[in-house]
Amino acid sequence: MSTESLRIAVVGAGIMGADHIKRITNTISGARVVAVVEPDAARAAAAAASAPGSVARRSIEESLAEDALDAVIIATPGPFHESVLLPALEAGISILCEKPLTPDSEAALRVIEAEQRGDKPRIQVGFMRRFDPEYVELRRLVESGEAGQLLALHCAHRNASTPPGYVESMLITDSVVHEIDIVPWIAGEPIAAVEVKKTKRNSLAPAGLHEPQLVLLETVSGVLADVEINVNAQFGYQVTTDAVFERGMAAIGRTSGITRWENGRLTVAEHMTYTTRFEEAYDREVQRWVNASRRGEIDGPSAWDGYRAAVVCEAALEAQATGRRVDVSYADMPAFYAG
Amino acid sequence: MSTESLRIAVVGAGIMGADHIKRITNTISGARVVAVVEPDAARAAAAAASAPGSVARRSIEESLAEDALDAVIIATPGPFHESVLLPALEAGISILCEKPLTPDSEAALRVIEAEQRGDKPRIQVGFMRRFDPEYVELRRLVESGEAGQLLALHCAHRNASTPPGYVESMLITDSVVHEIDIVPWIAGEPIAAVEVKKTKRNSLAPAGLHEPQLVLLETVSGVLADVEINVNAQFGYQVTTDAVFERGMAAIGRTSGITRWENGRLTVAEHMTYTTRFEEAYDREVQRWVNASRRGEIDGPSAWDGYRAAVVCEAALEAQATGRRVDVSYADMPAFYAG
Amino acid sequence: MSTESLRIAVVGAGIMGADHIKRITNTISGARVVAVVEPDAARAAAAAASAPGSVARRSIEESLAEDALDAVIIATPGPFHESVLLPALEAGISILCEKPLTPDSEAALRVIEAEQRGDKPRIQVGFMRRFDPEYVELRRLVESGEAGQLLALHCAHRNASTPPGYVESMLITDSVVHEIDIVPWIAGEPIAAVEVKKTKRNSLAPAGLHEPQLVLLETVSGVLADVEINVNAQFGYQVTTDAVFERGMAAIGRTSGITRWENGRLTVAEHMTYTTRFEEAYDREVQRWVNASRRGEIDGPSAWDGYRAAVVCEAALEAQATGRRVDVSYADMPAFYAG
Amino acid sequence: MSTESLRIAVVGAGIMGADHIKRITNTISGARVVAVVEPDAARAAAAAASAPGSVARRSIEESLAEDALDAVIIATPGPFHESVLLPALEAGISILCEKPLTPDSEAALRVIEAEQRGDKPRIQVGFMRRFDPEYVELRRLVESGEAGQLLALHCAHRNASTPPGYVESMLITDSVVHEIDIVPWIAGEPIAAVEVKKTKRNSLAPAGLHEPQLVLLETVSGVLADVEINVNAQFGYQVTTDAVFERGMAAIGRTSGITRWENGRLTVAEHMTYTTRFEEAYDREVQRWVNASRRGEIDGPSAWDGYRAAVVCEAALEAQATGRRVDVSYADMPAFYAG
Repeated sequence: MSTESLRIAVVGAGIMGADHIKRITNTISGARVVAVVEPDAARAAAAAASAPGSVARRSIEESLAEDALDAVIIATPGPFHESVLLPALEAGISILCEKPLTPDSEAALRVIEAEQRGDKPRIQVGFMRRFDPEYVELRRLVESGEAGQLLALHCAHRNASTPPGYVESMLITDSVVHEIDIVPWIAGEPIAAVEVKKTKRNSLAPAGLHEPQLVLLETVSGVLADVEINVNAQFGYQVTTDAVFERGMAAIGRTSGITRWENGRLTVAEHMTYTTRFEEAYDREVQRWVNASRRGEIDGPSAWDGYRAAVVCEAALEAQATGRRVDVSYADMPAFYAG
Repeated sequence: MSTESLRIAVVGAGIMGADHIKRITNTISGARVVAVVEPDAARAAAAAASAPGSVARRSIEESLAEDALDAVIIATPGPFHESVLLPALEAGISILCEKPLTPDSEAALRVIEAEQRGDKPRIQVGFMRRFDPEYVELRRLVESGEAGQLLALHCAHRNASTPPGYVESMLITDSVVHEIDIVPWIAGEPIAAVEVKKTKRNSLAPAGLHEPQLVLLETVSGVLADVEINVNAQFGYQVTTDAVFERGMAAIGRTSGITRWENGRLTVAEHMTYTTRFEEAYDREVQRWVNASRRGEIDGPSAWDGYRAAVVCEAALEAQATGRRVDVSYADMPAFYAG
Repeated sequence: MSTESLRIAVVGAGIMGADHIKRITNTISGARVVAVVEPDAARAAAAAASAPGSVARRSIEESLAEDALDAVIIATPGPFHESVLLPALEAGISILCEKPLTPDSEAALRVIEAEQRGDKPRIQVGFMRRFDPEYVELRRLVESGEAGQLLALHCAHRNASTPPGYVESMLITDSVVHEIDIVPWIAGEPIAAVEVKKTKRNSLAPAGLHEPQLVLLETVSGVLADVEINVNAQFGYQVTTDAVFERGMAAIGRTSGITRWENGRLTVAEHMTYTTRFEEAYDREVQRWVNASRRGEIDGPSAWDGYRAAVVCEAALEAQATGRRVDVSYADMPAFYAG
Repeated sequence: MSTESLRIAVVGAGIMGADHIKRITNTISGARVVAVVEPDAARAAAAAASAPGSVARRSIEESLAEDALDAVIIATPGPFHESVLLPALEAGISILCEKPLTPDSEAALRVIEAEQRGDKPRIQVGFMRRFDPEYVELRRLVESGEAGQLLALHCAHRNASTPPGYVESMLITDSVVHEIDIVPWIAGEPIAAVEVKKTKRNSLAPAGLHEPQLVLLETVSGVLADVEINVNAQFGYQVTTDAVFERGMAAIGRTSGITRWENGRLTVAEHMTYTTRFEEAYDREVQRWVNASRRGEIDGPSAWDGYRAAVVCEAALEAQATGRRVDVSYADMPAFYAG
């Protein structure tokens, strides 16, 4: 590994982009932000000021032309990913692309095609749960076979409340997309079918949003994952998974930390947002991506994983709209992604 | 209330009957076993010997003729319940009938018709979970409205292993029947539809038994309960319910008790059978039934609850066989049961 | 065992006495209250009215003369115990005496002398913790040697607040007296020395009461138990014990029950009084005493245990007053109590 | 803050030194190891090889002469600290000195004197618990006054087993020294007295070592902390603190993480060493020290904290040897450390 720091352009200076800039600057070893790419000039300047030695740029093309870049982190909304991915692939630099890779599977296939013009995968997709220590331990438990085969998963994905503009399809594309990535990763095999059920509507959800919903994901060997998606849960932010094995069970994501007794109750604080719940996962994800990038590799979900998530999301949206069970099928995986 | 003890015949001297005889004799206040009704003479004699002052009888008719009975506990297999219920109703004594009331809804309606010839309900059905302290607390939380409306339930029902002769339909009629009773009791409204999904098969289950299964119960207002029924879970016996409300959640049935640290792990013992898990519920159920019987009343699930459970079981068996969502409809409830 | 109920006089109709009357009447199998002994006529009449078939009496002598008694439960304040114990022993009936046996060790020795005039122990002392399921499990763990030898205990004894008239000595005689009984019971050997330390004073304690305090109890083989006595803890009632073994640890008394998530926190209700915390222990204690009484035996702490607790309390009061470590020595145990 | 990395010499390439080299190289942002100082040439070379761009040096003097150093991490055994601290102070570079600052308070005073010849504190002492998130939260709870005043602490410090050569005094100087630092930090005031009690001896401890022990630390306002030091606990590594407040309690250090059910038990893995238990604390400590060093400051326990810990250790050793309560008194704190 070179002793030089990885020189990174961060594209998008919204909440997620600003968070990545802060992380690279203060927490991550072996990397530094050299450019902030953001069309909003004021926001770009503010973000660049928070990363000593970085400059503000209007476009990825400008940054690629002016800055000596080793890598890029893409933190814009999904519809804008493709237009950054393609020139970055062309330039041969390392890429960490926030989820989703692209909003639909067709665009994902175009990105995959472009990536294969290079010598090896350059794109890592930001499904950060794969770096959460408890998810990692659960994956290892499945792989070990120690508790027998995995049979079923019970997942819950709860947000305190939704931002303005949140609509029903976003239950799938913004929220359940994480389970759509992590369920096959835990199970070690792809999703084969999806179905969506509605529970009684939470009257505290915004008008027009009927939720919670129960999303059923079925893998090719029959592992059944039920996912409660519940984005106006009020009490806090909570992501849990219970795994049922042939000879036992495992549960992750439970509340922990300082325990207090007061007013007749034991209490433990619950997370309120994903930023604290997955803080360690984000740090590990980025540190490992930086380390891998310095070796010219990726070390996490690939563009192919991004494509598969896009396919399942499309099926889940159909299932949500129709109430029917929808089968999922994928293009054949290129050998390029087999490593 | 009379100062005299309630004089009880226990019908059936198998595991459950013997357990009730022991409970009445050693634990319950204000009741005693005066007769053990059991066709197997040796078993009857042994059981009667364990209850000082009781006699062995061949049939309920013999006991009704020879003994001064105030009440009967029916602990025979379900198919034999009706032939004890009808003469006991005729005799006007109090009845505690183990679940199920009858194996099918048609027989249940015959029992209900017979019961209505009396002046008030005499039959209490042995759905003991309604007496478990945590279930009671969960029901109160729903009634209070404190956490908003109930939206969904996640239930798990796990047995370590199945006895010989256990077949797929028994997942519904022997096991999920408890959730079929308790879900509408918690929700405060009947079940309207049922659907059954299969997870990956546990290879440790007996040949021919494809389980775990996921049973979806939907109440009339849309509360969705998913029930994992898993009867070869190996690790222990576990019955849990998580309730999702508009503003919070509640979970019951978690492992508790002495915590030990040994060999690098914190450990807490799990129950291995329903007898320890629901010991307190059984004691409370029988004590409250005894107390109510001495006042000529019941104090728990009625024959009408038993009928409704039979109807839902029939729908669930159809759902299990067909893979389809099955709607549930009931006869009109007689005013007799409105109290 | 006789099929007849045990006929009990309850002496003292205060909170504890009323609670025992209710327990015998509604919960306990094989016993009934036939007399309530209480000098306050109105209170006696009210208590007797709650136990169908019982009468009110002015004194134990009157009850012994007028009622056919098999047993007596003594629930008066400690200073009045001796004057009930002696005639009850004289009458040869079974006795359940609430703790303490007597307020001082001298009186305890007089009671012991009187008891030995009978053919076997008749007095059981109401140290109910020995019947708490978790304490029982901890005792078994010590006896099994499974985790190696017991080395140390950390105990906490917390009350929400103190009633009027509570003074510093009562920290020992009313509260720590439970640990003074249970520590040697768990350890399987007597206490050899005691010392008392003060923590920072809780400003919410009544004027003149400096607490919490830390009481150190040392057994003959060197097991060191530290007891936090904290009787104005505000948040609830909590009794916990952590046991340190050579190869592991065990903890009892932790909060359990329905778990709720609300307003950013997981919460579990804590007990507020000993009546709910030890409800099951009281029920088991009394049921087992009733069962033993019907066989003419005791089945719990004896008068000798009551004497030893009185001796340790005296040493602890000296330790509290002087700040010094005080050695404890006992009279030789009569063979009468060896059983 | 400069955009240049902090150039660090690590002194001592044993376990702790190697760990710091790895941390600086792979985890910490804004710092790099430029020299490894270690008299054992082979070990020095191996350590330097693990940090790209670093060289091996025989002495701190050699490194100060040859390398452009901004800072030094001292990870040698305590007796060797002073001979590195003095030239490093002379050179005016930033210092992170592993605990203890020095083995005795006299040496600590010499270091403090030397440090005051500079313009501001340069030495940070490696009491890493102050950076553990739960300890930080407990400190905040004390400061907030939300639960009333702190009254008492119950601490446990358990190691699985001891390395060869571990003797009784090390219970204080190697282990309880952490509580000697953290108790006054939590309480917000110094320790005024110390006393040591022995529990029953663990027969699994090495010959000559009588432990566990119970160390009582008393702060100036009377907060009483009892510390179970138990270094052959076998089952795992565990550091817990329970804090008793006027209106409630708080507990930290409880086992958390993936929960498994297997063979009739719920289980959660316990830590086995301090490296995993305090991994996050070490990372935060070093990152904050690096950040502060780049501003020419410290951000953690000072040399004065190191001196005070040395004074209390001396008192605790006397208490351990004599069995007596020993009062603690300190030199007056120079204004230099008041910041």
